[in-house]
Amino acid sequence: MDSIDINALSLEAIRARSDVLRDAIRRTPVVPMEGSLVMATLGVQNVALKLECFQHTGTFKARGALSNVRTLSDAQRAAGITAASAGNHAIAAAWAARAAGISAKVVMQNNANPFRIARAQDEGAEIILRDPGPATFAEAERLARDEGRTFVHPFDGIETVLGTSGVGLELMQDLPDLDAVVVSVGGGGLISGIAAAVKLMNPACAVYGVEPVGADSMSRSLAAGHPVTLDKVDTIADSLGPPMALPLGHALCAAYVDDMVTVTDDQICAAMVAFAEEAKLAVEPSAAAALAGVLQPLRNRLHGKSVGIIVCGANIDAGTFQGQIARGREHYDALIAY
Amino acid sequence: MDSIDINALSLEAIRARSDVLRDAIRRTPVVPMEGSLVMATLGVQNVALKLECFQHTGTFKARGALSNVRTLSDAQRAAGITAASAGNHAIAAAWAARAAGISAKVVMQNNANPFRIARAQDEGAEIILRDPGPATFAEAERLARDEGRTFVHPFDGIETVLGTSGVGLELMQDLPDLDAVVVSVGGGGLISGIAAAVKLMNPACAVYGVEPVGADSMSRSLAAGHPVTLDKVDTIADSLGPPMALPLGHALCAAYVDDMVTVTDDQICAAMVAFAEEAKLAVEPSAAAALAGVLQPLRNRLHGKSVGIIVCGANIDAGTFQGQIARGREHYDALIAY
Repeated sequence: MDSIDINALSLEAIRARSDVLRDAIRRTPVVPMEGSLVMATLGVQNVALKLECFQHTGTFKARGALSNVRTLSDAQRAAGITAASAGNHAIAAAWAARAAGISAKVVMQNNANPFRIARAQDEGAEIILRDPGPATFAEAERLARDEGRTFVHPFDGIETVLGTSGVGLELMQDLPDLDAVVVSVGGGGLISGIAAAVKLMNPACAVYGVEPVGADSMSRSLAAGHPVTLDKVDTIADSLGPPMALPLGHALCAAYVDDMVTVTDDQICAAMVAFAEEAKLAVEPSAAAALAGVLQPLRNRLHGKSVGIIVCGANIDAGTFQGQIARGREHYDALIAY
Repeated sequence: MDSIDINALSLEAIRARSDVLRDAIRRTPVVPMEGSLVMATLGVQNVALKLECFQHTGTFKARGALSNVRTLSDAQRAAGITAASAGNHAIAAAWAARAAGISAKVVMQNNANPFRIARAQDEGAEIILRDPGPATFAEAERLARDEGRTFVHPFDGIETVLGTSGVGLELMQDLPDLDAVVVSVGGGGLISGIAAAVKLMNPACAVYGVEPVGADSMSRSLAAGHPVTLDKVDTIADSLGPPMALPLGHALCAAYVDDMVTVTDDQICAAMVAFAEEAKLAVEPSAAAALAGVLQPLRNRLHGKSVGIIVCGANIDAGTFQGQIARGREHYDALIAY
């Protein structure tokens, strides 16, 4: 832990990286969420949605991937990159490589959603399928070793969080007086960057993380005081499924995140219904987790506040979405009455 | 027809009305649509989505309603407004009245989607339910006569199209070099305003309208050379269901719209799948009609072009949405292979 220096993620560095990425990364829109649920039931003052689902590749992952690729040396560029992912990071790594004009070999789990595999292929990367878990990462490590490719991590590393911090920077520039920002948490790469940017720009703004009950590695890591790895992950929010926090993400969350809460898969599905009906958005469960956190465990703490919710992205096929919306409808009344 | 002067919708008037409404109407975001469907299958250069679904009340109808309300005299303000609608215009009229601090009695069909009735009630208007069709309009006319209320028409009138023209003005300001703009058409209030703004700012930009096969009143009116009324309407896109074009809308479309095309309900449902998967949007059939038009009848004409699609709005419950997505999935492959 001693080697972790969170001061590398300074506001100056965050602003500089945002400038470097501006030509290729979209400044995503922020829209208010209004309607009966928010105004009457939730009782918050304002809810603003940061629509990172309209980022290139459909998720915030494009920011971290491009931030890494832009810092490669000429020799590293010539050798190309590799990545290991079940989905959105694979698409983002492929996109970033194409944007930078370099080669990418991306290893995906062979049980990944075919929709996401097709998306990554569309970005022009060579996609290699392996069994889930260790075999996927082992193949990426082999490609790094044998072909000299740079391994672009899905959520770890200072370059990654410098990329994701842009989400927080933009939101604070657009809405400097927010009382709270709420973020879904998987490996911690997104909330780390956002929390640093938010707290460095407005220390009075709270930052809350939301994890699935069955993938609560960051909650457990913060409680333990060190990064922990879960024995198993059990959630439909597969993009929030990394089983472990890592030292940098843990240190940044310990420094900048006010609290973590957890939500069930049923609550996540109900929040998908709320997103569809109240915000016209078709998002995957991982993005809905943040809203589920606002609507249930965080509701009392957010009463009367101005709240920013990060809609971190979505790559989901209509069939899966439809099934999860159907599940959510059964739980939606409970969510409203909570 | 002689009394129709489309020159009242001048660029100067459009700009002036946009300025008047700026404090209350959102400038909605424009986002690119990217991904396999658009880039590979559709073969267009760029697709930009004007996200009017993030307008107040969830649809563009807020623009026309507020544009009318803002022009009332003090005496008219004191008497309040009335409106007749199956849905989105009811919500918009109620919102505009509240925004202007005046009374609204809104007549809705008693078979309207309960989700939309609840939305209109949430906006603080008195909602009066009547049988569909003539009874709904008769009650609004009675309120206008007996209580002196101003009847705010859902799509007719110069104030309404001055309001909707802001959608085209903003889009042309953001993307002045578009080759074509595609709009779903119901009564014609939206496309009239947009087409005027687009053509007055960039005469080289084509404007296409898309109607359901079962609600093609504007297509028939343009073919006939005068406004026609349909014997019946048959489409799931209920917001596109007005059975007639009216003289102002017809004259503006005759002057400024390049062509009209029609799409089936199956094609509309398939486009709802495309919106969900490719643009993360949960929209109602009426908004999906424009994309359905781009993907099928207009595809060849738009090949290689930069195209703007108006996402005119959405107020839809998750249950209805889920059923239409399921229907669309069955037709999605045909849409791609078209």
